[in-house]
Amino acid sequence: MTAGPGPASGPGVPAGEDVRTRRRDDYPVQRAVPTRWADHDTYDHVNNAVHYQLMDTAVNGWLLDSSGVDVRKLPAMGLVVETGCRYFQQIRFPQTVAVCIRLEGSGRSSVRYELGLFTDQQTPAAVARFVHVYVDRSTQEPVAIPVEVERARSTS
Amino acid sequence: MTAGPGPASGPGVPAGEDVRTRRRDDYPVQRAVPTRWADHDTYDHVNNAVHYQLMDTAVNGWLLDSSGVDVRKLPAMGLVVETGCRYFQQIRFPQTVAVCIRLEGSGRSSVRYELGLFTDQQTPAAVARFVHVYVDRSTQEPVAIPVEVERARSTS
Amino acid sequence: MTAGPGPASGPGVPAGEDVRTRRRDDYPVQRAVPTRWADHDTYDHVNNAVHYQLMDTAVNGWLLDSSGVDVRKLPAMGLVVETGCRYFQQIRFPQTVAVCIRLEGSGRSSVRYELGLFTDQQTPAAVARFVHVYVDRSTQEPVAIPVEVERARSTS
Amino acid sequence: MTAGPGPASGPGVPAGEDVRTRRRDDYPVQRAVPTRWADHDTYDHVNNAVHYQLMDTAVNGWLLDSSGVDVRKLPAMGLVVETGCRYFQQIRFPQTVAVCIRLEGSGRSSVRYELGLFTDQQTPAAVARFVHVYVDRSTQEPVAIPVEVERARSTS
Repeated sequence: MTAGPGPASGPGVPAGEDVRTRRRDDYPVQRAVPTRWADHDTYDHVNNAVHYQLMDTAVNGWLLDSSGVDVRKLPAMGLVVETGCRYFQQIRFPQTVAVCIRLEGSGRSSVRYELGLFTDQQTPAAVARFVHVYVDRSTQEPVAIPVEVERARSTS
Repeated sequence: MTAGPGPASGPGVPAGEDVRTRRRDDYPVQRAVPTRWADHDTYDHVNNAVHYQLMDTAVNGWLLDSSGVDVRKLPAMGLVVETGCRYFQQIRFPQTVAVCIRLEGSGRSSVRYELGLFTDQQTPAAVARFVHVYVDRSTQEPVAIPVEVERARSTS
Repeated sequence: MTAGPGPASGPGVPAGEDVRTRRRDDYPVQRAVPTRWADHDTYDHVNNAVHYQLMDTAVNGWLLDSSGVDVRKLPAMGLVVETGCRYFQQIRFPQTVAVCIRLEGSGRSSVRYELGLFTDQQTPAAVARFVHVYVDRSTQEPVAIPVEVERARSTS
Repeated sequence: MTAGPGPASGPGVPAGEDVRTRRRDDYPVQRAVPTRWADHDTYDHVNNAVHYQLMDTAVNGWLLDSSGVDVRKLPAMGLVVETGCRYFQQIRFPQTVAVCIRLEGSGRSSVRYELGLFTDQQTPAAVARFVHVYVDRSTQEPVAIPVEVERARSTS
C-alpha cells in the first residue's frame, strides 16, 4: 500500500521516530527468509501474521547460529511477551525477505529487538519489535539472560 | 508466563494503561476461535504468530457477519498496516479463544481495533492492536471507510 | 472444481472405490473445525496444506476428549507416518468444516483413519487418510497402541 | 521415527515400490526450502501439514522460474486435486529441505509430481505425490495444460 495511517508511531517504534527511513545498514544482522506459496491470503499478498513467523525464524535462527548452542535446550527459555509490526509495502511469493535485526535494548531478563523486513526496495517493507523474556523452564519465573544469548549478542 | 517485561506500555496499548485489567465485558463483540494442533511450537504452547491469525479471523469474521456483505468483494479493501500484541498467559490446544473486539478509534480511511484474547481465566491471555486502512483495490490509494464497514461498527 | 483427475483411486482410498459417494453418516465421529482468514491462498480458497491441519486437529482433539487423558503425556506418542487427501470441492473462509472420522484399520502399533471433510453440501469436499504409528518417546521404536487410545476407539 | 507401518505402498507411490530407496539424483529438479521456527508442533518436529507447504512452494516456485511467466496470471489455474505423503524421518528447524521433483505422469489437464524431501541423509525424509489439474479460472472446467507449464516441464 502507499500510505500508513498517519503519524509514524506505534509498535516497534519509539514514538515520533519515522522508521520508514530505516535501511538494511542500520541493522548489524541480516537473515534471508524466503516466502512460501501458502503465505498469501485472500488479498494475494503475504498475510500479516506471516511476518511474525519470519521474525522468530530470523531471531531464533540467528541465536542458534551465533550462540554456538541449541538455545532450545537451555534451562531458560525465551518467551515472546510482546510483538508489533508496521507494514509499509506488500510482500509477495516468491520474494525472499531480508530480516534485519538490531538490539533495541535489554533488561535483566528481557531482550528487545527491532527488526526491519526488506524485499527489493531500499525502504523497509515492514519494521517490527520482538521482545523475549527469559524464564526458568519449570517454574516459568523470569531469570537472567543466559550467557549463551549474551555471547550471541556481543558478536553481532 | 508469570510476568511481563516491565511497564504496561507498548503495542496495542495506550501508554501507561495497564491492559492486564481488561475483562471480557470491556469489549462489545466476542468471537470464539478454536486453536489447532499445529498451532503449538517447540515450547509446546501456541506460537506468538498464531495470535494474529486468531485476530484477523475474528475481525474479518465479525465484519462478514455484521456488515451483511462479503467485505472481500467491496471495491475498497482493508489492508492491515499495524498490529501489536502483548502476551500474558500461554494458550494451549485444544483451548478455544474468546477473541474480544472493541473499536479503539478511526480516521477517514483507518479503523483501529483493540482485541482481548481470553481463555479460561478472568484476565486476558493477550491484548492486541489491529489497524485496517481501506484502500482502493486497483490504485491502492486510501479511500473512505466503506459504508458497509461503518454499518457493522454501529451495530456492535 | 468440478472434476477429479480420472479414476477414483489414490491416497485415502481403497483402489477402485469411489469415495465421492461418502456421506457424513458413514463416519461415527464428527468434529467441527472452523476455517481461518489466513487459510486462503493466492487462488482465494483454503490451501491444500490446511486440510491436514484440520485433520490432526480433529483426530487429536477427539483422542483428547474420548480417551480421558492428555495423550500428549503418554510414554508412547503417535507419529504421523502417512497422510493423503483427495480434494473435490473448494473450501472458503468463514466455512466451518465437519471433519468426520472412521477407523479404517489398525495393526499392533498403527492406526489408520479415513476422514471425510464436509462443508455445506451432501458430498464430501475432501476425503483423506491419516496414519498414526505409536512409538516410544525416547527410543522412537514402535510400541503397542496405548490402552487409552484403544479405549477412545471403542467408544466411537 | 525408525519404521513405517508395514508395506511400502500408499500415497505418492506405485504399489509395491519401495520409495525409501529414492536418492536426490532420481529427481531432475531440486529446490531448497528452509524450515521455520513455527513449523514445529507439540512433538518438537516439523508438523506433517508443513510438508505440503514445502511441496507447493517448491512446485510453484519451480514453475514460476522455469516457465518464464507468472503462472498465477494465466487463464488456466492449477488446482491441487490430490496429495499424499509418507514420512520416514523427522525434520527439525533450522534444517533446509531439498525438495526434489520429478514428473510422474500427466493427462490432458493433469500433471502428477513425485516429490522427495531430503535433509542431511542419503535417504529421503519423506516421499510424496502432488497432482495439479488445470481448470479455466472462471468456469472451473478442466482445460489443456497451459503451454507455459509444458515448456517448464520440457526444460527440466
